[in-house]
Amino acid sequence: MRRFVKKTSYKAGFPPGTLVHIGEKKTETVRISYLDYDYSNIHENVVDSIEECFPLKDTHTVSWINIDGIHRVDIIEKIGKQFDIHPLVLEDILHTNQRPKIEDFGNYMYIVLKMIYSNENNEINSEQISLIMGENFVISFQEIEGDTFEPVRKRIRSEKSRIRKMGPDYLTYALIDSIVDNYFIILEKIEDKLDLIEDEVVSSPTPDVLRNIHSLKWEMTYLRKSVWPLREVINSMTRTESNLIQESTRIYLRDLYDHTIQVIDTVETFRDILSGMLDVYLSSINNKMSEVMKFLTIIATIFIPLTFIAGVYGMNFEYMPELEWKWGYHLILSLMFLTVLTMVVYFKKKKWF
Amino acid sequence: MRRFVKKTSYKAGFPPGTLVHIGEKKTETVRISYLDYDYSNIHENVVDSIEECFPLKDTHTVSWINIDGIHRVDIIEKIGKQFDIHPLVLEDILHTNQRPKIEDFGNYMYIVLKMIYSNENNEINSEQISLIMGENFVISFQEIEGDTFEPVRKRIRSEKSRIRKMGPDYLTYALIDSIVDNYFIILEKIEDKLDLIEDEVVSSPTPDVLRNIHSLKWEMTYLRKSVWPLREVINSMTRTESNLIQESTRIYLRDLYDHTIQVIDTVETFRDILSGMLDVYLSSINNKMSEVMKFLTIIATIFIPLTFIAGVYGMNFEYMPELEWKWGYHLILSLMFLTVLTMVVYFKKKKWF
Amino acid sequence: MRRFVKKTSYKAGFPPGTLVHIGEKKTETVRISYLDYDYSNIHENVVDSIEECFPLKDTHTVSWINIDGIHRVDIIEKIGKQFDIHPLVLEDILHTNQRPKIEDFGNYMYIVLKMIYSNENNEINSEQISLIMGENFVISFQEIEGDTFEPVRKRIRSEKSRIRKMGPDYLTYALIDSIVDNYFIILEKIEDKLDLIEDEVVSSPTPDVLRNIHSLKWEMTYLRKSVWPLREVINSMTRTESNLIQESTRIYLRDLYDHTIQVIDTVETFRDILSGMLDVYLSSINNKMSEVMKFLTIIATIFIPLTFIAGVYGMNFEYMPELEWKWGYHLILSLMFLTVLTMVVYFKKKKWF
Amino acid sequence: MRRFVKKTSYKAGFPPGTLVHIGEKKTETVRISYLDYDYSNIHENVVDSIEECFPLKDTHTVSWINIDGIHRVDIIEKIGKQFDIHPLVLEDILHTNQRPKIEDFGNYMYIVLKMIYSNENNEINSEQISLIMGENFVISFQEIEGDTFEPVRKRIRSEKSRIRKMGPDYLTYALIDSIVDNYFIILEKIEDKLDLIEDEVVSSPTPDVLRNIHSLKWEMTYLRKSVWPLREVINSMTRTESNLIQESTRIYLRDLYDHTIQVIDTVETFRDILSGMLDVYLSSINNKMSEVMKFLTIIATIFIPLTFIAGVYGMNFEYMPELEWKWGYHLILSLMFLTVLTMVVYFKKKKWF
Amino acid sequence: MRRFVKKTSYKAGFPPGTLVHIGEKKTETVRISYLDYDYSNIHENVVDSIEECFPLKDTHTVSWINIDGIHRVDIIEKIGKQFDIHPLVLEDILHTNQRPKIEDFGNYMYIVLKMIYSNENNEINSEQISLIMGENFVISFQEIEGDTFEPVRKRIRSEKSRIRKMGPDYLTYALIDSIVDNYFIILEKIEDKLDLIEDEVVSSPTPDVLRNIHSLKWEMTYLRKSVWPLREVINSMTRTESNLIQESTRIYLRDLYDHTIQVIDTVETFRDILSGMLDVYLSSINNKMSEVMKFLTIIATIFIPLTFIAGVYGMNFEYMPELEWKWGYHLILSLMFLTVLTMVVYFKKKKWF
Ligand SMILES: [Mg+2]
Ligand SMILES: [Mg+2]
Ligand SMILES: [Mg+2]
Ligand SMILES: [Mg+2]
Ligand SMILES: [Mg+2]
Ligand SMILES: [Mg+2]
Ligand SMILES: [Mg+2]
Ligand SMILES: [Mg+2]
Ligand SMILES: [Mg+2]
Ligand SMILES: [Mg+2]
Ligand SMILES: [Mg+2]
Ligand SMILES: [Mg+2]
Ligand SMILES: [Mg+2]
Ligand SMILES: [Mg+2]
Ligand SMILES: [Mg+2]
Ligand SMILES: [Mg+2]
Ligand SMILES: [Mg+2]
Ligand SMILES: [Mg+2]
Ligand SMILES: [Mg+2]
Ligand SMILES: [Mg+2]
Ligand SMILES: [Mg+2]
Ligand SMILES: [Mg+2]
Ligand SMILES: [Mg+2]
Ligand SMILES: [Mg+2]
Ligand SMILES: [Mg+2]
Ligand SMILES: [Mg+2]
Ligand SMILES: [Mg+2]
Ligand SMILES: [Mg+2]
Ligand SMILES: [Mg+2]
Ligand SMILES: [Mg+2]
Ligand SMILES: [Mg+2]
Repeated sequence: MRRFVKKTSYKAGFPPGTLVHIGEKKTETVRISYLDYDYSNIHENVVDSIEECFPLKDTHTVSWINIDGIHRVDIIEKIGKQFDIHPLVLEDILHTNQRPKIEDFGNYMYIVLKMIYSNENNEINSEQISLIMGENFVISFQEIEGDTFEPVRKRIRSEKSRIRKMGPDYLTYALIDSIVDNYFIILEKIEDKLDLIEDEVVSSPTPDVLRNIHSLKWEMTYLRKSVWPLREVINSMTRTESNLIQESTRIYLRDLYDHTIQVIDTVETFRDILSGMLDVYLSSINNKMSEVMKFLTIIATIFIPLTFIAGVYGMNFEYMPELEWKWGYHLILSLMFLTVLTMVVYFKKKKWF
Repeated sequence: MRRFVKKTSYKAGFPPGTLVHIGEKKTETVRISYLDYDYSNIHENVVDSIEECFPLKDTHTVSWINIDGIHRVDIIEKIGKQFDIHPLVLEDILHTNQRPKIEDFGNYMYIVLKMIYSNENNEINSEQISLIMGENFVISFQEIEGDTFEPVRKRIRSEKSRIRKMGPDYLTYALIDSIVDNYFIILEKIEDKLDLIEDEVVSSPTPDVLRNIHSLKWEMTYLRKSVWPLREVINSMTRTESNLIQESTRIYLRDLYDHTIQVIDTVETFRDILSGMLDVYLSSINNKMSEVMKFLTIIATIFIPLTFIAGVYGMNFEYMPELEWKWGYHLILSLMFLTVLTMVVYFKKKKWF
Repeated sequence: MRRFVKKTSYKAGFPPGTLVHIGEKKTETVRISYLDYDYSNIHENVVDSIEECFPLKDTHTVSWINIDGIHRVDIIEKIGKQFDIHPLVLEDILHTNQRPKIEDFGNYMYIVLKMIYSNENNEINSEQISLIMGENFVISFQEIEGDTFEPVRKRIRSEKSRIRKMGPDYLTYALIDSIVDNYFIILEKIEDKLDLIEDEVVSSPTPDVLRNIHSLKWEMTYLRKSVWPLREVINSMTRTESNLIQESTRIYLRDLYDHTIQVIDTVETFRDILSGMLDVYLSSINNKMSEVMKFLTIIATIFIPLTFIAGVYGMNFEYMPELEWKWGYHLILSLMFLTVLTMVVYFKKKKWF
Repeated sequence: MRRFVKKTSYKAGFPPGTLVHIGEKKTETVRISYLDYDYSNIHENVVDSIEECFPLKDTHTVSWINIDGIHRVDIIEKIGKQFDIHPLVLEDILHTNQRPKIEDFGNYMYIVLKMIYSNENNEINSEQISLIMGENFVISFQEIEGDTFEPVRKRIRSEKSRIRKMGPDYLTYALIDSIVDNYFIILEKIEDKLDLIEDEVVSSPTPDVLRNIHSLKWEMTYLRKSVWPLREVINSMTRTESNLIQESTRIYLRDLYDHTIQVIDTVETFRDILSGMLDVYLSSINNKMSEVMKFLTIIATIFIPLTFIAGVYGMNFEYMPELEWKWGYHLILSLMFLTVLTMVVYFKKKKWF
Repeated sequence: MRRFVKKTSYKAGFPPGTLVHIGEKKTETVRISYLDYDYSNIHENVVDSIEECFPLKDTHTVSWINIDGIHRVDIIEKIGKQFDIHPLVLEDILHTNQRPKIEDFGNYMYIVLKMIYSNENNEINSEQISLIMGENFVISFQEIEGDTFEPVRKRIRSEKSRIRKMGPDYLTYALIDSIVDNYFIILEKIEDKLDLIEDEVVSSPTPDVLRNIHSLKWEMTYLRKSVWPLREVINSMTRTESNLIQESTRIYLRDLYDHTIQVIDTVETFRDILSGMLDVYLSSINNKMSEVMKFLTIIATIFIPLTFIAGVYGMNFEYMPELEWKWGYHLILSLMFLTVLTMVVYFKKKKWF
């Protein structure tokens, strides 16, 4: 079973803001990189220590710092000190079973959400992405290297793209948009699976099919947990009065909101379809069973009386006149044949076969 | 299975406003036509290039430009430039899995909704219709030629109709009204199907009937996805403060709102009826099976003891006094007859047949 | 099946306000009558042409004009012209699948609701009642003669009744109240049916009972469609700021609102009871089947081993020592008896019978 | 079946405020008593005619008049006239299928609610209690003698109790509180029943148990109908701006509100538990049946092949070499034994027994 | 069955504020301790009589008084008098089936909630915790010794912790936080149980597994009753305008609110998973049964016709030509073999095994 509560017990009772990484450690090394750009210039780098990023704080360019791997608590702590992030935010970054949410701290916003991916077993999995958006920087925290942000990086590198003319709010939008776009890719994959199951559910309703239906149902439950609160996050970004978000970015956020609604609609539709498939599966199973039972019934009800007749004339009574008749045997055989005929006609009339 | 997520994956990561057609390409050619009218004059034309429609932008008449086929991105782009439409709107026009919605851009409104039709397999299908309503123009985008707008065109051509005296807001209302009217036609067809299934579900509950119930259930899910947000669209048109919508048009929009509610009511009622039919189907199946099993039980429980009695007197023991009795055979036959009688009486009393 | 969508297809595409009667034509002739009254005088009449009612428009008395039969479009049209009714209202009067609603046009209010009755097959049916309430008149439109208004007429005829002292708002209240009172009568009849089914569902769970449960379930769905929006109608009448409704009438409307809530409560309770009955029905069926199967099992498991034993000693081997024993037959009979005993004891212990 | 709609049909069409008793007449005589008290004095009396209570109206003491039995319409009418109660309120007092509600008439409040009790068959039943609270009086109407108010009476008689220092609002609170306290007693009894059923549902899942589950389910439906609106009643008492309710009483009403929420919580929990029990019942039944069928299958599949083998060597062919073998019989017996062994091992491996 | 309504009946009718302990008495002795601290000093003590704590009321330090055991009504009463607590609050402290709630009395707040723990049978149980937070004191009431507060005590004892610099509002937050942290520990244990059941439900679907599923389902119902109102408590603490709660504490309360939402999410997810498991269980059972029945059917349908054939040639007719054929026996054996073959091929084609 996919675990919903990660090992949080040993943290119980710690004072708030205690920086301990909760969740499985998904990577060994921590990779720190940054992209610093404005309309005319761009600097991109992978650095060894977080301190190399600190000067970016005070530049007027947009600085996107990306951290892959959150188990090095000391790095998170240094960022917190340098960028003046509240300890409870740092705690949330490390605590990887956050529900997607947005929090406005005046001079920065903290956004946490789930990046969905298919793991090696073709199961849906998620990675917690934390975004801190300040006046001229964005810091993104990932649990592990590899993300859906590559197209955004490409657009930043391209001199003529809109993203180069806009601020950290638009960058934040672009990052979230790339995550939501990825939901559609996952939903397409799930739809392929549904397609496959749909045929099997009627033709060969094996227990495996049931297991697949239920595992998809649980994946839907899993997706819902990420995507319903995500909708709220984007909605409140659209409506916020914070001046960290420019007026011109809002229309893009509304577009993003539409996409989130589409994801939710699809997830709910898939849940409905899965419920329907479960019904079809159950009655397919039932149908197969009925066919088997009907066959037994027909064979049994035909032969049981015949066997009885044969049994009667297998009795060893000394005085059984029929046994001595010349045509006794043939008479009995005819009687048996008649019995069969009557039954077949009766079954046909009842439409049993 | 009807696909709910159209191939959107290759678009993931594109910058917002990238004009790529998403969805199946339903037509080869693009057909552009316009209807330009006021109270006293009317011009109607099919044109080869979209540029021929551009002069209509600045006339004071109501200009309705209709585009059948949206895969020619260049045409959409030119319209966007000429009529000053936001790139995100153009993207939505091309992206055919929009959820019905309305967006107010001040000098124009963008409305997207679903036109429902039965395809060749008698399945419900939908076509995305985009409407852009400006101060003196309406542009409609369809995925494919053929629509429910013909009655509206007729009314425009008729000199005395109300539509000729009113503005683009009333034209927009009339177009949406023709789409909603068409929902009723589809619902009538579905009701005919329900009527057919209702009889079969009791008389011959075959797996086909189940399949039909489930496919109708899915069609209801499909319809709901179009019609619930449509209600919100019309509601917000009725309440908007935009001066693109005249006071005199609002009462017509309220009437349209009523119709949408009726559609929703009917869809929900059909869902309830289908759930009920599923229950009836399952217990019909069950009933048939019970009848079969009861027959087996009766035949078996009657003949099994008889066969045993016959078996006893088929044994070859040397010393079995009954075998030598003169009336042994007849006695045993009578015993068998009595057994049958007792059982039949018992079954009758139990009301098993 | 009761049809929920009446033949509306041929109307699709008509301009709004086109006066065409939608729904089955339930009567041949149209009957027009009026009741004109104030505190001291009363005039009652059945008239041949609607024009005879027109002078009532300008009297200061309360004038109640009642039209039975709405298929004569010309009559509706004349009323519309004379009393200055909006064409969309006239359309709604003719279109008999309205959802109950109230609309305030300033100088008159339009109310549409459903009068429920049991038809000849003892099925619930409904008739659309439209009420137009002006400053000093009420016009009621019925689909067919015969209504629940008789007690209201009697009260008007009685000189001392409260209704004679009050205005058209109180008359409107009294008419709706008579319709709601009738819902209780229908609910009592349904409760009688539930009472009958409740016994049958346990004693004789035939497919007919199932059919009855489901037809009642559908009737509940049908009632809900009328009664939930009716509640909203009465609620908004109670809260309206229109001066067509006197302050003194509001307390009566609140009382009416209570009654509507009681109807809704009862309908919902009946739905719950029907769901419960369905469960009981299914497990009754199941129970009967189990009893049958258990009987088969007991008979079969007892006799199958016995028959085998008999079969063994029916074999024709030359060397079978038991056959020659003097007490062989009796021994075997005893063995069989012991087998039966063991089984019966086992079954008893397992509580199978 | 418990009837939810009481005989209301004969009242249909009566003008509003017609005083007719609706519901079963639960008592013959009407008992009128009063308790008149202030901080220092108390008068308690049972009177023969309601007129004896009329002087209490104008005293400055708190006067609680209690009427047991509401079928004497003339008494209700006299009270109405004397205390200036609206005819619609009097009608509601007589009409015993009210939904709990509160109505504020400025100089008095009308509260109607349900007192729950277990009847002789240990079924939940309810009695309608109407309370009219004025500036210095409370009138309570019961359907029948016997109530949950005794502890309140005791507290009034005790000189030092808080109730003696407070007004009719606190008395009203105390009366409702005693009714709500009684709900807990009823819920405790239901919990005892649930406890009993819980064991039976697994050990002996008879149809009686099913019947009990369903009758409890219906009782929950019945309770919900009383208790959800009661919550609204108390909530609006707590928030009312009427100066009939003192500021100091509000904290007691909030406490009462808590208790009502606890009742609702418990009712909803019981409904959940009952649903769960139904599931367990159904699978217990199923389990029992499976056990029976498995036994049949094992016996049948073991003996059917054996019987066939015996049958083969019971054939009367002249040339059957095995019959003449010396050890033929023993060989066949061994073969049979081997068959049984194989099957038993197979069954064991399949974990069928 | 876990009881939801504790013995409350004997309290029915008591005047409000009557101090009687309701619920099981979980401890014999009452243990009173206090922790009095500010930034620089700390005093910790276990005292014999509550009076020893009274001087703490007027110190400017934060004073946390903890009472383990609430059955000594006199102690509760003394606290009430000394700290000026409303009698209804004292009643709620003693009445241990409170729904979690918060009440603001101006100079103090009363918070009641449930501390969850696993009892010796590994079942979830809860203890009612009442907190009274004043300007410079917190009083906590527990039903029994032993709590989740130990980490909070440790932090208080540590000189450098944030808690030492803050007020009673932060202490209250820390206490509730420790309770909520403990919910995660319980949820982890439940997840372990779910993990175990998940495997069993497919491999060995015994009635025990069903019982476990249902007991977990009831535990979820139990948890929901504690945790949904807890969310409301914390939400209203976050939004309160009372100046008992400092601005700087609010961010911690919002963090706590997040945690509560996570608990609710997990509980709801577990409910979904349990519903799914129930479905899988039922179809596993069904599957096992089907396998058994199919085996019976195959064995029976193969051997029944064979036994009939054998029976025919076991008849004792004098004139049966086949019996005398030389190869009669072998012919019949071959016929039987052919019959078996045909059937096996048929079954294979039908995919019955
Ligand atoms: Mg903590
Ligand atoms: Mg990553
Ligand atoms: Mg996107
Ligand atoms: Mg878009
Ligand atoms: Mg849905
Ligand atoms: Mg379904
Ligand atoms: Mg994109
Ligand atoms: Mg088209
Ligand atoms: Mg229309
Ligand atoms: Mg209309
Ligand atoms: Mg719905
Ligand atoms: Mg239904
Ligand atoms: Mg139309
Ligand atoms: Mg009529
Ligand atoms: Mg009424
Ligand atoms: Mg009333
Ligand atoms: Mg509903
Ligand atoms: Mg129910
Ligand atoms: Mg009435
Ligand atoms: Mg009473
Ligand atoms: Mg109470
Ligand atoms: Mg309380
Ligand atoms: Mg509910
Ligand atoms: Mg619930
Ligand atoms: Mg349940
Ligand atoms: Mg009390
Ligand atoms: Mg404790
Ligand atoms: Mg915490
Ligand atoms: Mg946190
Ligand atoms: Mg949910
Ligand atoms: Mg589920």
